Amino acid sequence: MGEETTTTRKARAPRRREQEILEAAAEVFHEHGYESTSIKDIAEKVGILKGSLYYYISSKEDLLYEIIKGVHEEALRNLEKTRAVDGNALKKLRAFAVIHFRFNAENRVKTAVFFQDFRSLSEERRATIVDERDIYDNFVRDLIREGQEQGLICPDIDAKVAAISILGMLNWIYHWYRPGGEQSAAELAEAYGDFVVAGLACRPDDHVPGHRRALAPLPQGFDPFNGNGRD
Amino acid sequence: MGEETTTTRKARAPRRREQEILEAAAEVFHEHGYESTSIKDIAEKVGILKGSLYYYISSKEDLLYEIIKGVHEEALRNLEKTRAVDGNALKKLRAFAVIHFRFNAENRVKTAVFFQDFRSLSEERRATIVDERDIYDNFVRDLIREGQEQGLICPDIDAKVAAISILGMLNWIYHWYRPGGEQSAAELAEAYGDFVVAGLACRPDDHVPGHRRALAPLPQGFDPFNGNGRD
Repeated sequence: MGEETTTTRKARAPRRREQEILEAAAEVFHEHGYESTSIKDIAEKVGILKGSLYYYISSKEDLLYEIIKGVHEEALRNLEKTRAVDGNALKKLRAFAVIHFRFNAENRVKTAVFFQDFRSLSEERRATIVDERDIYDNFVRDLIREGQEQGLICPDIDAKVAAISILGMLNWIYHWYRPGGEQSAAELAEAYGDFVVAGLACRPDDHVPGHRRALAPLPQGFDPFNGNGRD
Repeated sequence: MGEETTTTRKARAPRRREQEILEAAAEVFHEHGYESTSIKDIAEKVGILKGSLYYYISSKEDLLYEIIKGVHEEALRNLEKTRAVDGNALKKLRAFAVIHFRFNAENRVKTAVFFQDFRSLSEERRATIVDERDIYDNFVRDLIREGQEQGLICPDIDAKVAAISILGMLNWIYHWYRPGGEQSAAELAEAYGDFVVAGLACRPDDHVPGHRRALAPLPQGFDPFNGNGRD
């Protein structure tokens, strides 16, 4: 909490203003879509003149990029937090689900913009983020494989497919989560953690190939689209 | 296959053209976003003149609405298909996961438009669809409760939270699924079905309250955001 000099206090003010602008921009983008939003809409939301906004940013796309880059960089820190959890791979996967849920809940508007307006970024900027998004998928996939080696996760599981299932479940929450609901983000995150772990776990003594599928087998040749769904 | 009259054949041609226009519009919306797309872009994609397009539709928003309404109505048929599956609630949930995955994979571009450009619909039109979207959530939630009554699904599970987890996992696939990948949509759908069932199933003989959480317990008071995440 130590003392702060006049210099750091001064340096912080514009930084804080910048954060306010990013928050406001994210909200306007989220509500109306990036393409339908003008710099003027954002200035109005912040409560400053359009001209003053240009002191902080140089274009609407810069704002979008800053929001998306910010979410992306902070989300990568979730991986560090997960690595720091003491325990086996299954425990780490549970922690990851809890951490990532909480993160997405707390950054609901910004993650919505991330996923919904990503396509509006310039190709070059999009490529930078896309390359790094793989880090996320690979992290979860590798944890699943580690859990399989540790005899904690069912060997029948395709780690790549399970990783994307888990990430999808967690990334989807901006569609429905709102703060102040019946259950807190922390409680919901725990329920998601339970689901992820239960969906993956299997003890070597109980393992019989195909046992997860055998829990609720469908009729042989079950094809909901009569063969129209081939790709 | 009965004979068809000249009248029905004639009536079908514009209908087919309309479908072509909807497919083209969905692709352009998906690629560039609804707001950045003009009627001219769509006409170019179909390969007809802008003026001719107006023979089929009266506005860009009509096109968006037709795409979204189409996805929505067809998706509701998945519920019928699920109900028709012979078996207990767990089997029906597995079937639902398989059916809904396959549906989303086959309608990848249209479901992407559904989820990404939904906010661009007029308020009135949005309300109609939103009301009916609950049918979906409720359907899955009720199946989970039924499975709990049948002693097939863990009684610790909050059916509402589990339903939205499952739907999120399945709805997310437009972000990553592409036809022609390593695994077919049918194979991926089965893997999703396995995950859903394994995440829910529990036999009364094996049930001990909290056993799913106990599979990978986190340290007491685990709080990845140091209490900043309260809502």
